Formats: sequence, structure tokens, C-alpha cells
Amino acid sequence: MSDRPATPLLDRISRPADLKHLSDAELTQVAHELRAETISAVSVTGGHLGAGLGVTELTVALHAVFDTPRDKIIWDVGHQCYPHKILTERRDRIRTLRMKDGLSGFTKRSESPYDPFGAAHSSTSISAALGFAVARDLGGNPPEGLGDTVAVIGDGAMSAGMAFEAMNNAGHLKKRMFVILNDNEMSIAPPVGALSSHLSRLYAEAPLHDLKAAAKGAVSLLPGPFREGAKRAKEMLKGMAMGGSLFEALGFSYIGPIDGHDMDALLPILRTMRARATGPVLLHVLTRKGKGYAPAERARDKGHATAKFDVVTGEQKKAPSNAPSYTRIFGDELTRLAGEDDKICAVTAAMPDGTGLNLFAERFPSRCFDVGIAEQHGVTFSAALAAGGMKPFCAMYSTFLQRGYDQVVHDVAIQRLPVRFAIDRAGLVGADGATHAGSFDVAYLANLPGFVVMAAADEAELKHMVATAAAHDEGPIAFRYPRGEGTGVELPEKGEVLEIGKGRIVREGARVAILSFGTRLAEVEQAAEALAARGISPTVADARFAKPLDRDLILRLAADHEALITIEEGAIGGFGSHVAQLLAEEGQFDTGLKFRSMVLPDTFIDHASPADMYASAGMNAADIEAKVLDVLGVARIGEKRA
Amino acid sequence: MSDRPATPLLDRISRPADLKHLSDAELTQVAHELRAETISAVSVTGGHLGAGLGVTELTVALHAVFDTPRDKIIWDVGHQCYPHKILTERRDRIRTLRMKDGLSGFTKRSESPYDPFGAAHSSTSISAALGFAVARDLGGNPPEGLGDTVAVIGDGAMSAGMAFEAMNNAGHLKKRMFVILNDNEMSIAPPVGALSSHLSRLYAEAPLHDLKAAAKGAVSLLPGPFREGAKRAKEMLKGMAMGGSLFEALGFSYIGPIDGHDMDALLPILRTMRARATGPVLLHVLTRKGKGYAPAERARDKGHATAKFDVVTGEQKKAPSNAPSYTRIFGDELTRLAGEDDKICAVTAAMPDGTGLNLFAERFPSRCFDVGIAEQHGVTFSAALAAGGMKPFCAMYSTFLQRGYDQVVHDVAIQRLPVRFAIDRAGLVGADGATHAGSFDVAYLANLPGFVVMAAADEAELKHMVATAAAHDEGPIAFRYPRGEGTGVELPEKGEVLEIGKGRIVREGARVAILSFGTRLAEVEQAAEALAARGISPTVADARFAKPLDRDLILRLAADHEALITIEEGAIGGFGSHVAQLLAEEGQFDTGLKFRSMVLPDTFIDHASPADMYASAGMNAADIEAKVLDVLGVARIGEKRA
Repeated sequence: MSDRPATPLLDRISRPADLKHLSDAELTQVAHELRAETISAVSVTGGHLGAGLGVTELTVALHAVFDTPRDKIIWDVGHQCYPHKILTERRDRIRTLRMKDGLSGFTKRSESPYDPFGAAHSSTSISAALGFAVARDLGGNPPEGLGDTVAVIGDGAMSAGMAFEAMNNAGHLKKRMFVILNDNEMSIAPPVGALSSHLSRLYAEAPLHDLKAAAKGAVSLLPGPFREGAKRAKEMLKGMAMGGSLFEALGFSYIGPIDGHDMDALLPILRTMRARATGPVLLHVLTRKGKGYAPAERARDKGHATAKFDVVTGEQKKAPSNAPSYTRIFGDELTRLAGEDDKICAVTAAMPDGTGLNLFAERFPSRCFDVGIAEQHGVTFSAALAAGGMKPFCAMYSTFLQRGYDQVVHDVAIQRLPVRFAIDRAGLVGADGATHAGSFDVAYLANLPGFVVMAAADEAELKHMVATAAAHDEGPIAFRYPRGEGTGVELPEKGEVLEIGKGRIVREGARVAILSFGTRLAEVEQAAEALAARGISPTVADARFAKPLDRDLILRLAADHEALITIEEGAIGGFGSHVAQLLAEEGQFDTGLKFRSMVLPDTFIDHASPADMYASAGMNAADIEAKVLDVLGVARIGEKRA
Repeated sequence: MSDRPATPLLDRISRPADLKHLSDAELTQVAHELRAETISAVSVTGGHLGAGLGVTELTVALHAVFDTPRDKIIWDVGHQCYPHKILTERRDRIRTLRMKDGLSGFTKRSESPYDPFGAAHSSTSISAALGFAVARDLGGNPPEGLGDTVAVIGDGAMSAGMAFEAMNNAGHLKKRMFVILNDNEMSIAPPVGALSSHLSRLYAEAPLHDLKAAAKGAVSLLPGPFREGAKRAKEMLKGMAMGGSLFEALGFSYIGPIDGHDMDALLPILRTMRARATGPVLLHVLTRKGKGYAPAERARDKGHATAKFDVVTGEQKKAPSNAPSYTRIFGDELTRLAGEDDKICAVTAAMPDGTGLNLFAERFPSRCFDVGIAEQHGVTFSAALAAGGMKPFCAMYSTFLQRGYDQVVHDVAIQRLPVRFAIDRAGLVGADGATHAGSFDVAYLANLPGFVVMAAADEAELKHMVATAAAHDEGPIAFRYPRGEGTGVELPEKGEVLEIGKGRIVREGARVAILSFGTRLAEVEQAAEALAARGISPTVADARFAKPLDRDLILRLAADHEALITIEEGAIGGFGSHVAQLLAEEGQFDTGLKFRSMVLPDTFIDHASPADMYASAGMNAADIEAKVLDVLGVARIGEKRA
């Protein structure tokens, strides 16, 4: 405990109700201590730091004013929930954040009654708060009771279409509920005069003596180097916020902006809101991401996500990496290709760094489009770019592409438009857990007529697939690849265009064939080595394509082997299901073929390292080996006893 | 031709370029004739009438002012495109609308170069127009060239999150492009004074002499009985449109509102826009759905969709129906159950009539929520209702639920919240074609951990499934059912709660078992009769559940029969794939089991009658019979020759 901060007051808080007995000055002190504890915890776990530091005061104020868990505080996305977790009976486990069997890095219903609605993808909180408010008024009565509902949402998340839909509906239903717009970017100072007069008109008696100071603070905040998508979203919000006209048009009472780090502003305003609101209220607070921790405040991303670090220096303790990440390989190869072909362009939904498109954008800024948190629009925009004669690469994480699924079907697939989908974070992703596990994309894409669906077995294959996608003008094409570093294979100078629908034999063997789709190939090869040592030498193949299938390869494998096993980093309904359908149609089962399909199990797997998650899933080398032995009926009793 | 209207001027127009030679007065005459021709055509085909009549003048004006197909006119949703089709070299086929091998009822790229971007689901047009505008400026050059881009979008569609995302992005990119807001509902008269002065400020020299008349026309429009969702969307838009502030905040120049039926207003304003615009421009036009055809103007839905009708009387020629529709059965049963359980509530995304929730809303208005065209919000809102202790039924068409897919995964499935999904329009839907074919829901839902997925074999089964869903509190549950009438089976007074994961044997037989999931069961039974006449009497079972599977039933069918065939109204990756996975894991293929899975083929099937579409898909009784004979190796050569 010697390296932990002194937190005498926080130490006395074992649950939010304990805050009720404190003075405002003491609550301010709790916030200071909570910030120190948050920094200390994340220094040993890594994780999302800046967002939590930005809402430390807000967290204390909300729990002090509202009556949780009966009242529902819903943190949008959830990156900012660590201080909330510390306050809500989870301080003892806060140094297990994002670790196996530890606390989730997001809010999670199964973890605590203080997390009424889990999150991880953005812009869901207003819909959730509205749902609770309506349920309350209809007599819904969950175990913790049901009182007020408060959504806390960032300005970036507020710009997503879903948040707009929810505001629109909430304004119509006129239920009492609260939305706190956590505005932490501030490239343009808002016209505080008009807003504050609006505020005083609405809440004439509220003690707003600190608004002027808040305004001054807002103007002095640095604009910083904003990404275009985020900047645009913010500008728009500022435009909308003028006089609160948009929020008022949407039926909300608008209050703000106020300084979200000033407890003397936050507490009275929240108390007033709680005492007086009859319908939907939006409170606009200005905060600084990374607030109160100099290394985070200085960082370009305001300490958004961090490895473990030294609290004093802020220096991050990153493990040395042996191979480039898949993300980097994608960004580099696309940039190289774009240098040769001026029709190549790229689309990201607020994830230029996460998708590697930052590399592309540096060299070709006019051909890179960050559309904001707007996957629906991003996909259809890409479709029209293709219809207009361009070669768009739409780069999204597997789970975020789920947000644009109808657009993939309706605008891309049905129209056979050559949009290239670069699907990062395919398969299990580690610390971000189930919400970010890219488990379903193969199933939801490979059954779309006309789609080509590829998965890279390693980073060299990824280079080939980027080149293949660039060259494929006949219709939509997708390639998926995992989070993290590659396997360290030798990289070709440039990707080769692969023949569509052709896999490759990696290892010739007998009796059993293992057909891999994606980066399990390394585990398959390891299993094959172990099996060879037992005298069973499997054939190993890399399918490369889930669609179209390599029929010749698959039927040859079926014909030449006693057993055929497929493996993929995805749920049922994808590659293995397509192989099974082919084998069935071709009568391969009629006379006996030992077929097995290894897919992700039918559970959402909690966060852990990717290797641990794949162990839970039963998809590592040892599991593959065991599956082969089982299928071939080779006894393993001796080993079990060993 | 005797019953066709006289259209002397329209007869001289064989392509849009011919409009260039006409005077404004002649263009007005073309619009009149075009309206008459549209009414005449739809009277013999049925289809979407009101929307087209509302934009007849706009259609002529756009084609007269812009240079199509080089300039891109993108009709949002596409219901309003019939007049556009008549003007764009498709008049000769206009009386084949929505018929097999005839014109699509929507815009469709493969049908005409004048349809630059197909539609059918709402709110995609602004994304598409922006994509074309960006492609143009990057040098994209599709075969027809690439000039200006114009999205025409209704006020309802404009309220969807996706449209907001696209406006936000377009305002940022500042490309020259046009959005025409086709505002045809008008429950609240806009503050035209402020708007027109704004307009005159922007376009001082434009000939706006008819704005006052337009304003008067707007005020005199009847409010009519609006559905709440649509009404709300409109109110909001009106609020936003005040002074054009939202659109201007989003970076658009705002013009309007103008009378969309007055060619003397439309033509000069469009010409001015085209001549002067440098960035994104929004033109707000006021129109009347069903304009110029009294029976449509009088109708509650303004002649939105119609059967064939008598032009003089407006009387629709509907075929007498023998059985209630699935939609009706759902609405009735849910309403009955809600009378017994006050926790049952319902959510629709702007489709109360289409989903049958209008029946529920009449009796329980406070428990029915029309969230507008907002599937993302609708699903998460439902999740929170469930978290708040309610029993929400989220009723959406199969293809529209695709819009909320991430929310189904992230907010419902991961949190195991008991949202009940009532999925209408499952399978092939007929005249609406591929864009509305509910082909993918089983695949995209049944691989989500914790989900229960059912399909009704007939309308009595649907009643049971509604009751089963109401009783299922352990997690998410979905039930799917097709468009149209039931089979006419006897209906129980109320639905029974089915045992989760249990199917039923419908017919005991031998050699081959056919396991059906959904309403193909009737075709399967017909095939079984035909096969029995040949001495092959199949076992027939109704799976009821794709998840969890009835393991006992399936393994028993596999053990007791030489062959097992599954059939479902869905694409690969769904029910049949789950059965195959089970059979593989249980080693049923190892010693030979003739397994086949009949799924929708790997093509998007064009509009026709559902029966014709299923014939194309190879999924009618004759196809099932043929599949059985083929699997059993029974020769059919003699028949082929007969």
C-alpha cells in the first residue's frame, strides 16, 4: 500500500449512500481523493484513464445527489466508469480492471446493481435512460427499485444518429429524465452569454454564482489537435447548443454550460434539477479529459487509453513488440496501394487511429473520410463512392460494423457495389471483453449474395488481401483480421492479388485434414506438429475465403481424408457452416465423413488476454489436437491419467 | 388504350432531355399528364400511389432543370419514383410495376442508368448523394458521368438517425450537393415569415413571387390523423426548421419552404440553386401526398399503398381473403395477453399498421411506443424497458431489424435482457422484392448466446409463440412469421406456452425425415403426400425452435432415418447450419447420414408473387419432393421424359 495515495475521506465511503452525510467541501475532497485513487489503480492495470479523470467530480456529485442504485446512472460507452466503480462497492477489486476474472473496463449489469445498463459501444445511454423512465411510469419494478434516470454522454457520442433518435423520442414522451452532455473537447467557446441567460430564465432561483467562472474556464481551455470527425461533431453541437435551441426543439429543458470540475456549481444545479424537473432535462457540462493528471492532460489523446505507467513520470510500461500489428500492416499496405491508384479512398467512423487509417490520412488527406460515430452513414457513403467510380475501403471493427448491417445488405450487397470492408478486431479481442469480440461478421456477411469474405492467417496474408480487395471491382469484398501483433512472418514488399475463392495447402498429411480460416492457423500448425510426434500427420490448409468457398480444395480434402475439421475465429453460421452445406449438397456425408467445425462457443466470453479467451473457447493448439484425437478415436486415457 | 388518359405532351417525351425544349407552361402541362398516367398505371398494377402523386411536379422540374443521368437524383425510399420511371425511358413498362419480370416498385441501379442509387429502406439518400459528390470531386467517373447530386427525402425519413449522420458529415465536407426535404405532413404550420425572409436573404435575386401563396397553401393543409411517431418527427423538424437554424448549424444553406406543386416556384428556384450553389443546399418543399387524386387525398394514408383500383371511383379491387394475416394474429394475441398482464408493452419503429401494433395501441395506448424511423433506438429502448421490469415486444420487419443489429447484440443479447422480438415479413415477401426479403434474421440471431429463436409454421403456432414469448423472462426471444395470410388452420382461443427448445412430429414415416422451420411446413406436407403416393412416406417434423435446438428430436430423426432434410425460409447460416453443427458434433455423419439443408439460394431474388419467388428459390412442394427422391437415389428419368 506504500505507493498508494492517502485517501482518508474516501476510505470512509463504502457505498454511495455514505456520501449523503458529507458537506459540499467534504465531497470536493472525496473527488480529489477519488482522482488520485483512479490514477493509482490505472497505473497498475492500464486502461482508459482520461475519460474517468474528466468526470471525477461529476461522479461524486451524481452519487451524492441521486439515490443509486434505485436511481439509474447510465454512463455512455463506459470508458469513464472507473471512479464510479470505486465509489460503488468495487474499490477492493479496482486493481483487477480488465484482467481475467477481474472487473470489466466497462459498466456491466452482471457485475453490480449500480450498473443498471452496461455499455461499451457508444450512444446507447439516452435510449436506455428513456426506457427506464418509461418503465418506471408504467409500474416496472426491478429488484433495486426504479427512480430517476440519468444518462451521461460525451459530445462525440451525442453526434451519433442513435443518440439523435433517442433525444427525438424522449422529447416526444416528455418523461422526467436527465441527460448530462459531458462536453470535453471545446475547440470553439460557446456563446455563454445567451446560454447562461437561458439557464437563468429556466432555473431562476438556482444558485448559479459560478457560471461566470465556468465560462472563463471554458474559453481558456486549449483547442488542441482535433481529428476532423470529432471536430465536426463538436462544431455542430456548439451550433445546436446556441441558446439551447436544438435541445429545446427536441423537447428538452436545456441547462448549461457549467464547469464540470466545480463541485460548487455541479452540486446545487444537480440538486435543483432533481427537485424541480418534470420532463426531460439536458445539462451541459464542460470538462477536461485527463483533468488533474498532468501527463494525461499533456497527451494528444488526453490519456484516453494507457498501458501500465509510472504515476510520477507518466511513463508507460509497454511490452516490447516483436511484430507489427495487423492494424499497422493494413494502414501501410493501403497507403502504398493508394500511391499507385488515385481511385482508392478510405472511410472510418471516428476510429482513424484504431483502424490504422491515420497512416493513410497523413499521406492522402483528401481521400480519407472520418464520418464520425456514424456507421450507418459510413457504409452507405462508401457504397455511393463505389457507385461514383471510386474504390472505397470502409474500415471498421467487426462489432461496430454491426451498426451498419442493414446498409451493408441494402446499399452494398443488393447493389453489388465494390466496397472493400477492412474488418479489424475480428475474433476475441482481450481486455475489452465480449462487447468488442468480433464473433459474428463471417456469419452475417458470408450469407449475402455476391459478397467475397476473406480472413488473413497472418500479416503477410493480410497484405495480399488488401491488394486483392483493391483489385476486386466486381462487387463487395471483406477481409478480417485480429487485434494485436502479427506472427512475425517475413513480409513481402507488396501484397499479391490472390485468386478469388482459392485456398492453399500449408502442410500435406494424411487421415485428417484441418482447414483453417483466419489466424488460428498458427495454433493448427502447432497442433499438427504435436500430432506428428504421435504418428498422426494432418493435412493443414488455409481456406483464405469463406465465400466463395474453394470447392475443389474442400472436396479433395474430404475425399482424401477420413476426417475433416474446420476452425475459425467466429460463431456458428460462418465458415464451418458454409463448408458443411457444401459437403451435404455434394453427398460427402452420405457415405461417412468425420466432419467437425470448431467455432466460438455459445457464450459471451468475459475479458481476459486473447490467449486466455481462446483457451476458454477451446480453440488453442491443445484443443485442436484433442479434437483430432477424439475424431479419429485415438485413446487418450493414458494421458489423462498422466 | 381506350381507358387511358390523353397525354399528348407527355407522349412526345421519350427521355428527360426532351423536357429541355419545353416552356414552363408546357412543363406544367407535362406534370398534369404525368399525374394522370401515374394514376392510370397504378390502377392496373396496385402499388405506392400517394407518394408519387405528391412529387409529380418536383419530378418534372428536377428532370427539366438537371441533366440526368449525369446528374444524380436519389429518391429516398423510392415509393415516390413511379412518375420518375415514366419520364426516364420506362413508360412502356410502367404497367408491369411490381410484377414478376416487370419494373421494380423502387429505384434500382440494375434497371436504369437514371436510378443511380437504389432504395427501399428509408433515409439512405443523403449519404448516397454525398458519396457521389465526393466521388465527383475526386475524379470518379462512372459510365454515365457524374455531375450534380440531389437527394429527395421525406420529413419522416429525415428524422432517422442515419439522415442526421449524413447531414452532419455533408455539412462538414462542404461539397456542392442538394437535399430536397419533401415535407408532406404539416401538422404545424411553419413560421413562414422567418423562413421566407431567410430565403430572400440567401437568394435575393431569385424569383420568389409565389412564396406567399405557398405559405397560405401550407397553412390550409389539413393536419389529418397522424400517428404519434410521425407526428413527433414532424414537430421536431418544424422546430428545427425555424429560421433554418438546424440545417444552417449543420452547414447547409436553407431555402424554403416553397409549394412543391407550383411549377412557377419550383422551376426558378431549382434553376437558381443549380446556377449558384457552391456548397450543400437544403430546399424545403411542401407537398400533399396523394395530390390531385381525390380518393387518395381523402384516404387516411393519403393513398400510400393500394391494390388495383377503379380510377373513377377509387374503389380498390382486393382479392377476398380466406384467413387472417399473420400480422393480424400477432396484434390480436398480443392485445389479448396485455389485457392479462400489465407489464406487456410494445415498440414499433414507424410501422404500427404494418406490424399489427395498431390493434394493441387502440386498446393500450399508454403501453405502445412508436419511436419513429429509429430502429437502433427502438431496440435499446426495448432493452431498457426489460431492464426496468417490463415485458417489451419489439415488433419490426426482418430486414428493418438489421438496422438495429448491433443493439440486439450489445444491449439485448450480452445483457440477457428479455426483449421479445416479433419479426414480421420473414422470408420472401413478394412485390417489395429483395430489399424487403427477410432472409438473414435466423442466421444473425441464432448465433447470439442466450437467444431463443422460433418460427411459426402456421397462424395457430404464431399464437402459441406470442404466448411463449410473453412467458419467457429468462432472456431474449424472437419469433418470425411471414407476410400475408395464414393457412386457414383452426385457431385456438388463446396461445399455449410452448416448451422452450421442443419441436413436434407432424407425420410419422420412414426412410426420410423432413424437419421444417417456419411456414414451409405446408409445402413439406404436400410433398409428403405426393411421396406417399409413390410409396415413400416421410416423417415430417416442425422444429419450432432454431435455438435452442430440440436435440433429442433431431438425433432421433437422424438415428431412425436414412436421410434427414431441413428446410427454412432463410439464407444459409441459420437453422440448417445449427442442425448440421449438432449432427457433426454428435458424430452422426461419421457413419453416413444423408443430410441436406434446403435454404434460400445465394442470390437476391427479384420481386414476384411469394409463390413465384419460392419457386425461383426451389423451395416449393415439388422441389422438396425432388430433393427427397434425389437424396434417396430414386430414379426420376421416366418422369422427366413424360
